[in-house]
Amino acid sequence: MDALSIIGIIIALGAIIGGNILEGGHTQSLIQLTAFLIVIGGTLGAIMLQTPFKVFFRSLKMLPWIFKPPKIEGDETISKIVEWSKMSRKDGLLVLESIAEEETEPFSRKCLQMLVDGGEPKAIREIMETDLTQEESRGMSAAKVYESAGGYTPTIGIIGAVMGLIHVMQNLSDPSKLGEGIAVAFVATIYGVGAANLFLLPISSKLKSVVDSRTQHKEMILEGVISIAEGENPFHIEKKLRVYLSES
Amino acid sequence: MDALSIIGIIIALGAIIGGNILEGGHTQSLIQLTAFLIVIGGTLGAIMLQTPFKVFFRSLKMLPWIFKPPKIEGDETISKIVEWSKMSRKDGLLVLESIAEEETEPFSRKCLQMLVDGGEPKAIREIMETDLTQEESRGMSAAKVYESAGGYTPTIGIIGAVMGLIHVMQNLSDPSKLGEGIAVAFVATIYGVGAANLFLLPISSKLKSVVDSRTQHKEMILEGVISIAEGENPFHIEKKLRVYLSES
Amino acid sequence: MDALSIIGIIIALGAIIGGNILEGGHTQSLIQLTAFLIVIGGTLGAIMLQTPFKVFFRSLKMLPWIFKPPKIEGDETISKIVEWSKMSRKDGLLVLESIAEEETEPFSRKCLQMLVDGGEPKAIREIMETDLTQEESRGMSAAKVYESAGGYTPTIGIIGAVMGLIHVMQNLSDPSKLGEGIAVAFVATIYGVGAANLFLLPISSKLKSVVDSRTQHKEMILEGVISIAEGENPFHIEKKLRVYLSES
Amino acid sequence: MDALSIIGIIIALGAIIGGNILEGGHTQSLIQLTAFLIVIGGTLGAIMLQTPFKVFFRSLKMLPWIFKPPKIEGDETISKIVEWSKMSRKDGLLVLESIAEEETEPFSRKCLQMLVDGGEPKAIREIMETDLTQEESRGMSAAKVYESAGGYTPTIGIIGAVMGLIHVMQNLSDPSKLGEGIAVAFVATIYGVGAANLFLLPISSKLKSVVDSRTQHKEMILEGVISIAEGENPFHIEKKLRVYLSES
Amino acid sequence: MDALSIIGIIIALGAIIGGNILEGGHTQSLIQLTAFLIVIGGTLGAIMLQTPFKVFFRSLKMLPWIFKPPKIEGDETISKIVEWSKMSRKDGLLVLESIAEEETEPFSRKCLQMLVDGGEPKAIREIMETDLTQEESRGMSAAKVYESAGGYTPTIGIIGAVMGLIHVMQNLSDPSKLGEGIAVAFVATIYGVGAANLFLLPISSKLKSVVDSRTQHKEMILEGVISIAEGENPFHIEKKLRVYLSES
Repeated sequence: MDALSIIGIIIALGAIIGGNILEGGHTQSLIQLTAFLIVIGGTLGAIMLQTPFKVFFRSLKMLPWIFKPPKIEGDETISKIVEWSKMSRKDGLLVLESIAEEETEPFSRKCLQMLVDGGEPKAIREIMETDLTQEESRGMSAAKVYESAGGYTPTIGIIGAVMGLIHVMQNLSDPSKLGEGIAVAFVATIYGVGAANLFLLPISSKLKSVVDSRTQHKEMILEGVISIAEGENPFHIEKKLRVYLSES
Repeated sequence: MDALSIIGIIIALGAIIGGNILEGGHTQSLIQLTAFLIVIGGTLGAIMLQTPFKVFFRSLKMLPWIFKPPKIEGDETISKIVEWSKMSRKDGLLVLESIAEEETEPFSRKCLQMLVDGGEPKAIREIMETDLTQEESRGMSAAKVYESAGGYTPTIGIIGAVMGLIHVMQNLSDPSKLGEGIAVAFVATIYGVGAANLFLLPISSKLKSVVDSRTQHKEMILEGVISIAEGENPFHIEKKLRVYLSES
Repeated sequence: MDALSIIGIIIALGAIIGGNILEGGHTQSLIQLTAFLIVIGGTLGAIMLQTPFKVFFRSLKMLPWIFKPPKIEGDETISKIVEWSKMSRKDGLLVLESIAEEETEPFSRKCLQMLVDGGEPKAIREIMETDLTQEESRGMSAAKVYESAGGYTPTIGIIGAVMGLIHVMQNLSDPSKLGEGIAVAFVATIYGVGAANLFLLPISSKLKSVVDSRTQHKEMILEGVISIAEGENPFHIEKKLRVYLSES
Repeated sequence: MDALSIIGIIIALGAIIGGNILEGGHTQSLIQLTAFLIVIGGTLGAIMLQTPFKVFFRSLKMLPWIFKPPKIEGDETISKIVEWSKMSRKDGLLVLESIAEEETEPFSRKCLQMLVDGGEPKAIREIMETDLTQEESRGMSAAKVYESAGGYTPTIGIIGAVMGLIHVMQNLSDPSKLGEGIAVAFVATIYGVGAANLFLLPISSKLKSVVDSRTQHKEMILEGVISIAEGENPFHIEKKLRVYLSES
Repeated sequence: MDALSIIGIIIALGAIIGGNILEGGHTQSLIQLTAFLIVIGGTLGAIMLQTPFKVFFRSLKMLPWIFKPPKIEGDETISKIVEWSKMSRKDGLLVLESIAEEETEPFSRKCLQMLVDGGEPKAIREIMETDLTQEESRGMSAAKVYESAGGYTPTIGIIGAVMGLIHVMQNLSDPSKLGEGIAVAFVATIYGVGAANLFLLPISSKLKSVVDSRTQHKEMILEGVISIAEGENPFHIEKKLRVYLSES
């Protein structure tokens, strides 16, 4: 559970809405369907035009990670790898076959299967690094969808504002409505800038961090499995993998 | 058929035009030939001055990919490569000669021909990687033409708007036309920002994605052909190439 | 003690506040709780949504480095390493065991322990370079939190300003308050731009410099320890490490 | 002759001037010596302050490439290299001596001379690649002068506009001249934005493309000459070099 | 003496001031102490907060290079290196000892000393390349101080302008001073944009060019000294180093 994400959203919205109330504005004046339609619709359209279907779909599937990122348990993983290493040194690599079948994390399972199949360390590294790089770049592409969206909303908010201003300008004959009209036009700007800076760009950054942590965790697994393939000492393996978790 | 592209364009245009109607504006007031001429003409001119002829031409030829991207059939290609591998292990590399002749995809054909000509794995990799890199950079250059255009339209829209404002300012003596004049000037801004954010930048991104997928597909083919040249086991080749398609 | 940081803050604030006074403005008119709330709250919320908890926490812990950066004493470190080198050439690497236990700087201690454990130079480099890279990237991520914040404050300041302008526009009927209302709205812009350019971006740069110096210092230690492991001449080691400190 | 460049300039200028006429503006109102002086003078000064003399001079010398890029004849060059390869395989490398003397393209001549002097393939590659990289980075620096200029003109246009507005503001007492004054001020913005987007940035991009093509052409020559030095089969050399020209 | 720098500053200032006079403005109206104080003070403060002391100091020390860049005499240096090469081939490396002592350029002296001390080519390259990279990155950091400053001045100019506008808005009751007030506020914008685009950014670029040339010159020296250590033919050395100076 990523409490910081939830607190962040509450603080940001609270600051904007609370600030508006303190300034004496009505919260109502910030709510405007047309501006919402223009900013969300325009951005969604641009994103759909820009993004291959698979990436678009993955970016939606990854969104809940903001609140509930996938668990990454470094210590536990190291214990498991050290255990595998001990077993394989005692009874040979084939003993890992049943473990590979039971392993639920797909990357670990693939690594273990290559180990059981008697893959050379170099071959395991080559294939699994391609896998890892592909997976990372897929995750990053999906995270960047929100970054792109955050690039579009402010400018599309400006389109909404300018359209509103054009409407105002064409009705200058009734100056009593001038201020109100401009006010409505400006809401599109707030939606555009707010959507980008309070939601879309931070979401993209958080997702990138998650993808990054997962990649690093997998790198650690790969390093460990290759060390097993090379028949390294379990004690040494643990030491080597600990470095990935060290905080100083 | 890339349905997402079509839906994206419809949603984006619908949001802008629908939003304008909801705001009480006339769709007509968004249609203005002069602004269109300035933004399109200025951008087209800048792009023509900037782009070598071949790149300009290729960027036009690649535009339909937005709706109908070239087919990339990973599974089918792997099956073909595994088949080639089996044939060559059974009957020698020369058996691929007739297959090379029948192959329609140019990259695969070139690879196969080098195989049949008895090229060393290292030589095949060197030559075909140069080919692949060249092809990728040509595709990317063409895709970036739309990105450049999307960089020019907003600023040229500003030129149009400022020219309009100058015209308005010179006729302040007739204030009744002030609002209308400013409204007309603002349309150029909408065209500039809209063309960039709703069309040109998304198109560039989508084309880059297509070029990327094609490159990766060719990398997979190259990897497969080199593995055949090295006489690797068909079962192993399949496993290695599968990694390029894996989704987890 | 980083006197330049303190002087910098004084000069910057003095210039802004002094400038305002010289222009005939009241300092008071620059102090406005609502604008402050919007800019700080909005930015803090965006940063919390964007940043993993560990990085957020580390960025807070690193903030005092602005005024009191961690000491990095190159000359002293070189003397220590040369001393270790002499001892180990005379009495063997094991003599460094007690020194490793007494060493307080964690990176040096880890390096010495690997030396005492009889690690191969190549293995020491591999493991400790991973450690160093991880540490550097953690430090840089934390420093970039301030850079991100400095990217958000100006745009969130604009949200505050536009909200203020909307409020003004809706009350055009009372023109006497027009100017005052706009003035209040503009303060949010000053807070946003000022927070970014006078504090957040410079803080991020300074922290990056500190992380950089620490990394380079550790690289020097690692280089020295590896030279000891390779049994190099103490005189040569000193010469090699001096290069890291040379100023010309 | 680069027709696209000429057409581009005509279309861009035509769109701007034609658009202004269609909007009912006088072309005259876009012509203003002061604004021109400020934008051109300010930018030229900044560029001269920024650029080393040699780079400044080279950027001027490269400007005509926009209309008349240096000829790059890939096919012809490949034929020549294949011919050299055949001659050297038949009669030894010394037979290329007279050819080196007659060769007018400096890069080819240098390569041939190294061949005749009996340079090792590795030495030829090392020296000529340094030459090529230096030449490329010199060309790119010169092309970037226009990019820098295109970065300065819009902001200097803003300086011109703000100076004009200051002048207008100081003469508010005569409102009849207000509009005219603002109009004049805005022209500097158009000059700044227009110079950058219609000329300077596109020119920089085109020059970079030319430098790029020349570099790639020289890489091909180098690859060919090294293959000759290694005594490769002329047929193979042709195949290898063809890749540089392939279009698919 | 870098005449281009001086001419550049004169042209830029002449264009701005001359342009203002031609527009009918008083030069006096561009001179305003408060705006100057805000922009310079704010930027200086931000830079001091951001920059480590050594880098700040070096950036000041490097400033005169704008007008008087350190001499780099490629031809002379090559002659010297060729001479050293001839001497060392005739009488052994030790003959360079007295030359090393007399050499005034620190990088050359260090290289020569390593040569005389009998350093292996590989060791010389490793140590002196670290030295060179460190020196280059120190120079670049110092040059980037001006780039950072050029990033701050425009935004701090905006702070000054907005503060001025707030002051104006609070005194709308006296409309006769409105224009004058706005005019004063705008001067801060001109200072901010002008300082960045006419001075700070160009200065940073010029300093980077100087650092670059010095680095390349040192790379050439290093290449030459290593060739001497490897006992290469003086004639070959000259040829190899000439490439660094070639202009075509």
